[in-house]
Amino acid sequence: MDSLSEFDIIKRYFSFANTPHQLSNAHTLVGIGDDAAVIDTDNKPLVVATDTLIEGVHFPPEFLAEHVATRAMGVNLSDFAAMGATPRWMTMALSLSQADPKWLAVFSKRLSELCEQYNVALIGGDTTKINQGLVVSLTVIGETQSDSGLCLRRSGAQVGDDVWVSGSLGKGAAALQLLMPTEDLSQWVCSADDRAELLSSFYAPIPRLALGKTLIGVASAAIDISDGLVADAHHIASQSNVQIKLDGEALPVHSGLASNKNNQQVQQWVLGGGDEYELLLTVAPNQSEEIHALSSTFSLPCTKIGTVVEGTGVNVLGKGWDINNKGYTHF
Amino acid sequence: MDSLSEFDIIKRYFSFANTPHQLSNAHTLVGIGDDAAVIDTDNKPLVVATDTLIEGVHFPPEFLAEHVATRAMGVNLSDFAAMGATPRWMTMALSLSQADPKWLAVFSKRLSELCEQYNVALIGGDTTKINQGLVVSLTVIGETQSDSGLCLRRSGAQVGDDVWVSGSLGKGAAALQLLMPTEDLSQWVCSADDRAELLSSFYAPIPRLALGKTLIGVASAAIDISDGLVADAHHIASQSNVQIKLDGEALPVHSGLASNKNNQQVQQWVLGGGDEYELLLTVAPNQSEEIHALSSTFSLPCTKIGTVVEGTGVNVLGKGWDINNKGYTHF
Repeated sequence: MDSLSEFDIIKRYFSFANTPHQLSNAHTLVGIGDDAAVIDTDNKPLVVATDTLIEGVHFPPEFLAEHVATRAMGVNLSDFAAMGATPRWMTMALSLSQADPKWLAVFSKRLSELCEQYNVALIGGDTTKINQGLVVSLTVIGETQSDSGLCLRRSGAQVGDDVWVSGSLGKGAAALQLLMPTEDLSQWVCSADDRAELLSSFYAPIPRLALGKTLIGVASAAIDISDGLVADAHHIASQSNVQIKLDGEALPVHSGLASNKNNQQVQQWVLGGGDEYELLLTVAPNQSEEIHALSSTFSLPCTKIGTVVEGTGVNVLGKGWDINNKGYTHF
Repeated sequence: MDSLSEFDIIKRYFSFANTPHQLSNAHTLVGIGDDAAVIDTDNKPLVVATDTLIEGVHFPPEFLAEHVATRAMGVNLSDFAAMGATPRWMTMALSLSQADPKWLAVFSKRLSELCEQYNVALIGGDTTKINQGLVVSLTVIGETQSDSGLCLRRSGAQVGDDVWVSGSLGKGAAALQLLMPTEDLSQWVCSADDRAELLSSFYAPIPRLALGKTLIGVASAAIDISDGLVADAHHIASQSNVQIKLDGEALPVHSGLASNKNNQQVQQWVLGGGDEYELLLTVAPNQSEEIHALSSTFSLPCTKIGTVVEGTGVNVLGKGWDINNKGYTHF
């Protein structure tokens, strides 16, 4: 009963409006199945994305209010980065088990700062009581770079493209293990510095908005790594009808994971851990210089980690890099 | 600590973007505090509303999947009715403790039927695991009747207007007591027919979309009764800077409540019970004929229940109609 993944559920039960006919009738340029939807409002395309964070699932119960706000915004805006879109407005569904003025004051202050930083207006929402825990769901609405609705899509990868990733990998899963350990971590002697760096990247993931916007016309496909490298590579592969070959040895493992002697665990975190919020891209080889230039402009390492070939699915090469990894699934 | 109401929380912590300067910078025509927000996307106004339903709070744990879908849609579209707006697109944040294929199949089938019925496209969302219970949060995006962004607002009530309500009152609270009793119901011998009718209106609230749209230019202010008659009348009063006088004797109490011998309880349900999803309106007296005509067109009783006078707050007149009632608050 619990063998349905999130992707199965969406595909099986919630793609009923995704036939080309329905999409066109509903003035929907991009429906269910990409990082965000794109609707067509009298020739003005708008991007819409919804993401939910749940206490005890996506962050530990003792998570500070400012981190809840920062993560909720970061995770949602990362979808906009993956579309090359600009966030503008936002509604929030906030479900709380209690109305703690101190918590609310800190949460609200941080949210307000983030809205200013990212130039996003909080326009409405719903505040409700829940029996237990905390649920924050944001719906962000924004604009595409041009009125033709041009976006980065999951479906544009071409055979012969290279595969690139921004930043480093494995940090999301590693940080989640530090915060809510479910695995044996006895082979990992994590230094205080590494711990601090991993946690800080988890508390405040940085959506790659500027990079995403400049990748329009450069990358052929893009997705943010929220479900895990392999799972998200699978999304590109299946929507582009190609196979993605990843080179395990080339993957930019976060430096904080070097102290973990359990290689298998590290590989699992790198391949299957979600919550990275880096961009996974496919790019024609003649655009490599452009990626290097953008990497330098944004002081953000970008690494070539594979190629797009004919076929289906995802193939990870390199000794010990086990492909039996489907990424993060909730159920 | 728990004395903060939902309204206090929104006002105190989440209205940071609601100054006129901020609203204008963010191209927001209507910000936090109405039934829905209205954003201005290159002179194309769009209406956005978010509503959340939580198992054990808004509906009982054994609630059927089709009722969860119908109620979630009804509650959200009721906000559009109260704005006189037309829903077009929707995202869903669905948090489930387990992925039960039977539940999902029924839920999805009903949701798909409702999307077709109301001509709303499900364009995206997020499906997540929650440790306990069920949370459905919908964000609906739609259009105003004209490109000038004309909507029904809470803030337009004028001294001298009459106050009207669609349908009947008390049914939401009564049904919730039948489903999740928290009060002594010993004086209420509810017939099977009444029970069935009350539950059916709770399972599938009918958003007054057609009425709402035709009320633009007729009603001076509108709100849907989701928090309770008095609480929602308060919203109109405070946003319009007027007092609302309600005539207790004139209130259209749902027929299913006539069998309840506990008058105080009935009055409490009528004045304070939320979940009615009727429209509360203020209308100039010279438009009374128009309201009667619309009532007849839509075969929907509309009742004159009070007047708008100078002052503040809400005043309920009539023997035994106690004003000490602030409506439904979560915390």
